[in-house]
Amino acid sequence: MTHEIPSLTEEGFVLKPIGCVHACYKERFAIPRQPMLAPSVTAELELLPPYDTQEAIRGLESTTHLWLQFVFHGINPKSEGNKASTVRPPRLGGNQRVGVLATRSPFRANRLGLSVVKLNRIEIRKGRPWLIIQGGDFLDQTPVLDIKPYLPYVDAVTTASCSIANHAPETLRVVLSNQATDQLKRAEPKHWTLRMQQLIEILQQDPRPAYQSEDDDRVYACQLWEFDVKWQYCVKDIEPRIVVLSLDKPISSKERGTGGSVLNSNIQQAI
Amino acid sequence: MTHEIPSLTEEGFVLKPIGCVHACYKERFAIPRQPMLAPSVTAELELLPPYDTQEAIRGLESTTHLWLQFVFHGINPKSEGNKASTVRPPRLGGNQRVGVLATRSPFRANRLGLSVVKLNRIEIRKGRPWLIIQGGDFLDQTPVLDIKPYLPYVDAVTTASCSIANHAPETLRVVLSNQATDQLKRAEPKHWTLRMQQLIEILQQDPRPAYQSEDDDRVYACQLWEFDVKWQYCVKDIEPRIVVLSLDKPISSKERGTGGSVLNSNIQQAI
Repeated sequence: MTHEIPSLTEEGFVLKPIGCVHACYKERFAIPRQPMLAPSVTAELELLPPYDTQEAIRGLESTTHLWLQFVFHGINPKSEGNKASTVRPPRLGGNQRVGVLATRSPFRANRLGLSVVKLNRIEIRKGRPWLIIQGGDFLDQTPVLDIKPYLPYVDAVTTASCSIANHAPETLRVVLSNQATDQLKRAEPKHWTLRMQQLIEILQQDPRPAYQSEDDDRVYACQLWEFDVKWQYCVKDIEPRIVVLSLDKPISSKERGTGGSVLNSNIQQAI
Repeated sequence: MTHEIPSLTEEGFVLKPIGCVHACYKERFAIPRQPMLAPSVTAELELLPPYDTQEAIRGLESTTHLWLQFVFHGINPKSEGNKASTVRPPRLGGNQRVGVLATRSPFRANRLGLSVVKLNRIEIRKGRPWLIIQGGDFLDQTPVLDIKPYLPYVDAVTTASCSIANHAPETLRVVLSNQATDQLKRAEPKHWTLRMQQLIEILQQDPRPAYQSEDDDRVYACQLWEFDVKWQYCVKDIEPRIVVLSLDKPISSKERGTGGSVLNSNIQQAI
């Protein structure tokens, strides 16, 4: 094998994907805003040539967590976010502007992402290793530029602070309607409890855009795994909660609601 | 401004440097193998257009630590390391092969680096912000592809482990010869104690290649700041230590010893 050496051309360094993430997040909307917020959600990282060998990852099983350096793909190049040197992080209520480099927004220099994930296991399929990871916040088909072991003595800076996002965001209660529960049981008779747990971890992050927090009647739709998930924010009677209304499959593009998905391309990974 | 959107050509994604590190490490030899091992050593991160504005980093002062994603430059493209899918980390004695993706070696996919640093302060020079950082492990002139705030609640994974490098490497005692101390005082009458502390932090990492651990007579040379630093590993009489013999300046390439610098391009950031 030969490592590709990125040469600095007039346009920049040319970097090649070494892997591709196969994830349950089929659109940007509802992806947790940081990794490890939905820790039981798994994804599969396919290694690409020349790194798709057992030799290239030899010893990786001795590490529990990985860094993935990746490209935020699937962003409309015509989006207004591409022109701004500041963003409005949902963590700050969506109305305060912060420099792109002071956030983890995908609207940033070189579209370069960085996420820590848990390495669940390594599977060998037809001689090629696949990394099964947990807690990723990757859009399906995310191109990965590098994989590194997480070194706790270097990477876990316990003295660090970031005053605008020092703690994980508060989570919402999530409940499934009878219809949604039935649909899940029918679709995944063996794994429905795990899938429900994963669904709850994702939606309890409250994917609604910050500027629509009080719009409690709206039905949102997002595509997770092979499901077209419809859900609603409720404040009536009891504590605020997200109610999963239905989990339809298979998805037909004609049937899908417009939901909030189009509006929300700017909130993934923004702090 | 407009964020450059890396387009996926047949060759890969084209990424443009958004910054450049001005560092004391003028060659790869003697750079600590991970960031934050020489925590008082500062470097200056110059932001490049279109990110060299106060707007692009607005709010960054609320964070104590940063991630830098960068390119390992200054590696000989003809080096044997470019062809190997495994490396021999100095942490494992230099004789055990581990997959490149299981290490932090610079001989890796896309030459992509990742380091956490402490943000010491932001300085505005002629209207352009410069980030003064601490603990970096960057070769001078390192091209930076992205800067992100360190988010402790996401990035500090206290449950992570990496059994081949779970703790910082042991450090050696470092002493300065009378000549070296006199040279340092003369060269930096105001800051010589700080510079001595930084020098000790760097050399106590024991930059010698793993496979020469018992070669205790050799004089090594490395270029740090504007000094040509000559030092020796000693085991005689008392505890093993590194003795700084001299700190010459200005550096003349004719005067420089060959030292270990040529041999050691493969040890920076290898775990």
